[in-house]
Amino acid sequence: MTTPSPAAPASDRELVLTRLIDAPREKVFKAWTTPELLVQWFTPKPWQTVRAEVDVRPGGASLVVMRGPDGTEFPNRGVYLEVVPNKRLVFTDAFTEAWKPSEKPFMTGVLTFEDEGGKTRYTARVLHWTVADREAHEKMGFHEGWGKATDQLAELIGAPRPTA
Amino acid sequence: MTTPSPAAPASDRELVLTRLIDAPREKVFKAWTTPELLVQWFTPKPWQTVRAEVDVRPGGASLVVMRGPDGTEFPNRGVYLEVVPNKRLVFTDAFTEAWKPSEKPFMTGVLTFEDEGGKTRYTARVLHWTVADREAHEKMGFHEGWGKATDQLAELIGAPRPTA
Repeated sequence: MTTPSPAAPASDRELVLTRLIDAPREKVFKAWTTPELLVQWFTPKPWQTVRAEVDVRPGGASLVVMRGPDGTEFPNRGVYLEVVPNKRLVFTDAFTEAWKPSEKPFMTGVLTFEDEGGKTRYTARVLHWTVADREAHEKMGFHEGWGKATDQLAELIGAPRPTA
Repeated sequence: MTTPSPAAPASDRELVLTRLIDAPREKVFKAWTTPELLVQWFTPKPWQTVRAEVDVRPGGASLVVMRGPDGTEFPNRGVYLEVVPNKRLVFTDAFTEAWKPSEKPFMTGVLTFEDEGGKTRYTARVLHWTVADREAHEKMGFHEGWGKATDQLAELIGAPRPTA
């Protein structure tokens, strides 16, 4: 008998990352929603996050600018769809602000923060509009990238390295 | 000197319909958010709306089934993004439920209901992800279709034929 993994994607358009972080939900949520913290953990080195502006409410816009090793900057704009403090955060790049369609709807992120034995079960479900986009995202290094970023998040809030 | 028309689209991906309806905002909003009313006005004859299920809150799903003159049924699923009773209603077909990506993100509708000289200024801004989709929607008869439907809405709530 096996227990279904919390990391199992619900469809072929979904990618999932889940980690157990030894810190309270509040701290993990705060790292996701506070610009000064976000810039410190969001991108795996040698990439950097050089700017973060977040209006954390349904319909609020976010702008996160990532900088690659060669100095090229990649602005990422999105909108929050659902915000339940310390529990749930949903955002999409289908809009650049409420409700201006983006150039290309690529992904919607559904983050959940749950209590699990005194720690935080952090799960990121990333949904795409097409299987091709899910595959592309996976090939871009989703699992490694989000995994390293989550390690950096934990380190920033003083937690040991997260486990699956 | 000219006054900018309220019907001017803000971009080449947008279609706009605006009407002055001689009824209170509450009644126009109610016609949009009550299944028993929606089925009576939503589609221009000889089309019919045979089913409407609406969960009118941000993240709530909607299902509206339209039936063509030959009996073919067209289910339309969407999600509400913003709900301000009697003032503003935003929905999109980019999701079929919160937050499941649809097969094809086609449009987002931003409806506003404003007081104007004792009547209701009703404006529907319909935003598309591509210029091609805006053009296709226009060729499908957006202006005539939404115009006739709005006439039916007004008739249903006992208002005279709306004016531009």
